[in-house]
Order: sequence, then structure tokens, then C-alpha cells
Amino acid sequence: HEVILADSTSVNLFKLAMAALQYQAGRNRIITDDLNFPSDVYILQRVAQLAGDTHLLSLISSPDGIHGPVEQLRDQLDEQTALLTLSHTVFKSGYTYDMAYLTAEAHQRGALVLWDLSHSVGALPVDLNAAHVDLAVGCSYKYLNGGPGAPAFLYIREDLQEMLENPISGWMGQHKMFNFDLQYQPEAGLRKFLSGTPPVLSMSLIEPGLDLLMEAGMQAVRHKSLLQTNYLIGLWQEWLEPLGYTLNSPRQPEQRGSHVSLGHVEGLRIDKALIDAYQVVPDFRAPDNIRLGFAPLYTTFEEIYRAALALKEIVELGVYLNYSDQPPEVT
Amino acid sequence: HEVILADSTSVNLFKLAMAALQYQAGRNRIITDDLNFPSDVYILQRVAQLAGDTHLLSLISSPDGIHGPVEQLRDQLDEQTALLTLSHTVFKSGYTYDMAYLTAEAHQRGALVLWDLSHSVGALPVDLNAAHVDLAVGCSYKYLNGGPGAPAFLYIREDLQEMLENPISGWMGQHKMFNFDLQYQPEAGLRKFLSGTPPVLSMSLIEPGLDLLMEAGMQAVRHKSLLQTNYLIGLWQEWLEPLGYTLNSPRQPEQRGSHVSLGHVEGLRIDKALIDAYQVVPDFRAPDNIRLGFAPLYTTFEEIYRAALALKEIVELGVYLNYSDQPPEVT
Repeated sequence: HEVILADSTSVNLFKLAMAALQYQAGRNRIITDDLNFPSDVYILQRVAQLAGDTHLLSLISSPDGIHGPVEQLRDQLDEQTALLTLSHTVFKSGYTYDMAYLTAEAHQRGALVLWDLSHSVGALPVDLNAAHVDLAVGCSYKYLNGGPGAPAFLYIREDLQEMLENPISGWMGQHKMFNFDLQYQPEAGLRKFLSGTPPVLSMSLIEPGLDLLMEAGMQAVRHKSLLQTNYLIGLWQEWLEPLGYTLNSPRQPEQRGSHVSLGHVEGLRIDKALIDAYQVVPDFRAPDNIRLGFAPLYTTFEEIYRAALALKEIVELGVYLNYSDQPPEVT
Repeated sequence: HEVILADSTSVNLFKLAMAALQYQAGRNRIITDDLNFPSDVYILQRVAQLAGDTHLLSLISSPDGIHGPVEQLRDQLDEQTALLTLSHTVFKSGYTYDMAYLTAEAHQRGALVLWDLSHSVGALPVDLNAAHVDLAVGCSYKYLNGGPGAPAFLYIREDLQEMLENPISGWMGQHKMFNFDLQYQPEAGLRKFLSGTPPVLSMSLIEPGLDLLMEAGMQAVRHKSLLQTNYLIGLWQEWLEPLGYTLNSPRQPEQRGSHVSLGHVEGLRIDKALIDAYQVVPDFRAPDNIRLGFAPLYTTFEEIYRAALALKEIVELGVYLNYSDQPPEVT
């Protein structure tokens, strides 16, 4: 009753942020942080304009580019705050917020909270109802195994659904849509947040990936994920830190999603060497993050060992020197 | 340079209508007709509110529910009109507007024009540049053979692209998106009208259908389509009109897309009999339209003959009496 699969994460964020601002008329602040996924920030920048151009977007800075600025966010929440919106697990460092804590703090000031779960869902247990979360969006691209452009999802807590309006009022959200009435009359419940026809083929194609996750169970997935990120961090400490690699992810397991970023002044060239010479495929995230993602369903400990060994060799043997520091188009 | 494939038709219509209203600041009227696809009207109703709630949506009535109210639309265009938006081929009757004529009329009053091509594209030649069209959207569901929820498209005339802003400012429209800057800076040209990641799988899956259409050529497709709709109308005249069927589509070939609607007081029951007893699958569109779509690439003349014969038998033999007049959920 609280989740629908449709559109892209950006479109879903647009819908929920617009709906939240309209519902919170009289409050004109949106709060987020500089660890949020840039697409979310872009969407919020335009949403703030469209909502009447009197809205302010406060972008709170992380103290170190790794950890979420939890206290600063909490202290910024005020009577003017319409919406607090954050990536639950942030895309560069993999830092994971304490969802229940910040949600409760926001509610104390009357703000709604919208979490982007793209880097959390399928990687760690997320209990939106227990945390009394208002709104959430996310993709099925990453740990749900859907691949690029697979359908995204949105969540609205059940008691909020009646109060919010979908800005993109398409026919799939219409009451008795096949009556083809010419006056928009939203369907009850969450269905009104559908817009156009959902991508039927893409939706059916993500089912096998979801089935595997359900079968494994999120507790088991999280258990293996933490073992794997801990394992990499152990190897980093032993082999990579002495070679100039920095750990750009939290050391505290409970503050981590399922990816770990390592920094290095030669990060981009190392990244290229890793892909080309060792067939290990990380992402590169400027300025220096080599981001290694662990999908517990199929990533093995041996692969992690080989990746760390490769990172070691690339610097020790100077393999990275064979690669240019020109950024490629897609990283 | 003028077409991108992304999102759903409803989302694309939302983007372009919002962009048009923002560009046309000072003009507060949107004009459409009551033959337009309801989802388009729903989107426009919300867009009119979001654009500042001072916008008026004028819904011009067709004189007969079949033909577009061309003269009335033309006469309604005025200095307050920001946007004229219509389905090029309308979903019930299959009436096709003279795109070049109404576009030119709208331009004379300074209005932008947005055409929904969902029932035209792949069914008849559409030359947007020749008609100097401003904006267009459409689906790949129907005559492009993409199926439900296949990616939709949007068109912006090249010289307009610089002036319009995408309300859903996602990362795929960002200049150098993989820099992950936190300030939205739209890419030049049409790319800024992308929002989230396009559905890669769905996009690749529509290619074979497009290839077939390109190979056949739109002139040949249109030629066969007109022969087929004419053929059905001939059979209607000979067999079906005497049995109480009405022609709910234009008689003039140049005013027709590639579907024909037949009306009957027992339309819904006939529709059910047609599907169940004869395996001919039309759509039913209230109040009485049995809509027969002809996809020239694969619809045969024999199938049309059999469909018309079935419609004849269903009434002559009273087959429809075996079916209830309760509307099903999906029609």
C-alpha cells in the first residue's frame, strides 16, 4: 500500500518534493547536504523555483566529505523547514544516515522527510514504517539488480497519501481511468502517484533479481555485506594505506552501506588500470574516489582479495603510469 | 537534434507544457479540445495550477464527437493564449488534424503549439519541421510497436531549445554529468530535457519495430493504412450500417489516422462477443465505440474482412446477447 514502481528516481523525487512543498504551504525551506546525489540536488533546485521561487534550498556541508553532517542538519531544522531530504546511503563515501533519528528530529519541527534509498535498498535492511518515514524514492538499478534505467520506486506513508497531490497527474492515477472522463479525479491511495503507463517489460524483468534478494533475506545480505566491506578495509589497512590510499568511507560498520571508496592522488589513472589491466570494474567519483561496490548476492571474497591485490600492484609496479589522467566521458 | 526518447508521454507532456508556460510568461491561456486523450487533459489541469494558478484551460468541444473543432479552435486563439495543444490523431474517432494549418494560425497569435503524436507516429507521415511545429510528444506503444510502457518521446524545434527549461532537471540533462557538480547547469541543446536515466533495456527493445517501419517507408505504410480503413468503411456501409452500426470516424481519408471506430447501442456487449467468440480484439471506448486499429505492417485485409463479418454475425445472430453490459476493468 505504500510503494509503487514507476518512472525514474529523478521523476519520483520531483513528484514527492513538489507534493511536499505544496502540502507544507507557509514553510519555505528545503534542507539537504552536499553528499546527496547531484541529480537530487538539481531536481530540488528547480522544484524550489517552481514552488513559487520563494523557497530556499540549504545545502549543508559534510565536515570531511565522508560522514553526514548529522548535528548540523538537526540544528538547521526550524519552523520554516518544509522538507528535509537526503540520500540514506550517500553515493561517494557510502555513509549511511540514521534514518530513524533524523526523521524524528525533523518531525519535532514539523518538517517532512524524504529519503533517497538508491544506494540502500537491497544492500541493507530499510524499515520505513518503523522509522515513521514520510516519503522515499529509490532506483532498482543497483542492489535490486535492475540495471540502468530500470523502473524506480516511490514510497508515501499511508496516512500521508490522502494529503498529497501528484504534480504529474496522468491517467494511470485517475479514478476509473478507463471511463476516460475529462476531469482529473485522483484515485484513492497511492495509485494517484502513477502518471503514464508504467514500463511493463522493464518491470517484469526486475522480478528475478528481487526474488533472489527475497530468498536470501535482507539480514543475511547485510551480514555478508558488512563482512565484505570490513574485509576490504582490512586489506586496505595492511596493503594499501602504506601506498598512499586513503579510506574515503566510514570505519564504523553501522555507518556504511555496501560500497567502499578509496582515495589516491593518482585515483583516476589507478581506476583506468584496474579496469583495463585487471578487469576489476569500480566507479570513479571525482576528485579521487575509487568506488568499489559489493553486491553480496554475487560478489565473492576472492574477488575482493583480487581487487585489493590489483590496487596494490598498480601502485607498487607503477602500472597506473601507462594511463592518462584525462577523464573519460562515463566514469 | 530534435527528438529524445525518454520517460512516458504524460511526463514528457508535463515537461513541455510547463516549459512552454514559463516561456510564455504574461499569457495565461491553454487551449485544447474535448477529443484530446484524457491523460493529456489531466496533465494540463495540474500544469495550469502549478504555473501559478492564474492559468485557464479552455476545452473546446467537438461539434459531433468525431471531427476536430478546427474553426472554433482557430477563433479561440488570442493574445492571452500561451499554448495550443491537441492530439494530432484523436484516440476515439481517429480524426487527424491539419497540423500545418493550426500551427500557422497559432503562431499568428504568438501561441506555441504542442502536438501529441501517440496515434499518428508510425501510422502516417508526420513532418514536424515542415509544419514549423514547436513541441510534440508521443508514445512508442502503438504504431511503433513498443507495447505498454515502452519509452515515449518528445520533440522541440531546434531554435526553441535554447529558450525552454526542463522542470524535471535530472542529471541526464546536466552539462558534463559525470563531474557530479552540485549546481544544475543544463547541457546545451535537447539533452537538457532528459531527467533520470532512460530505460536502456526498453529502448533497445523497440529498435526492431522501428527498423521494420523504416524499411517499409511511411508513404507505403500510409497507403496501405488508407486502403484498409477505406475497406472497413466499405464493409460497414454494405453490411453493418443496416444493422444499426454508426461510423464514428471521419469519412474523408485525409482526416483519418489508422483506426476506425464503429458505434452501436449494444457496443460494449458486441465488443465482448468480438473478443470472446471471434478472437478479434478491438478497444472499447465509452459510450459506444468499438475501436478497430490497423497496423499496416501486420494487419491483413483478410483480418479486416473477418472482423467485419464477425460484427455482422454478432448482431444478426444475437451473439451479443450472451454477454453482460457491465464494463470490465480494462477496455
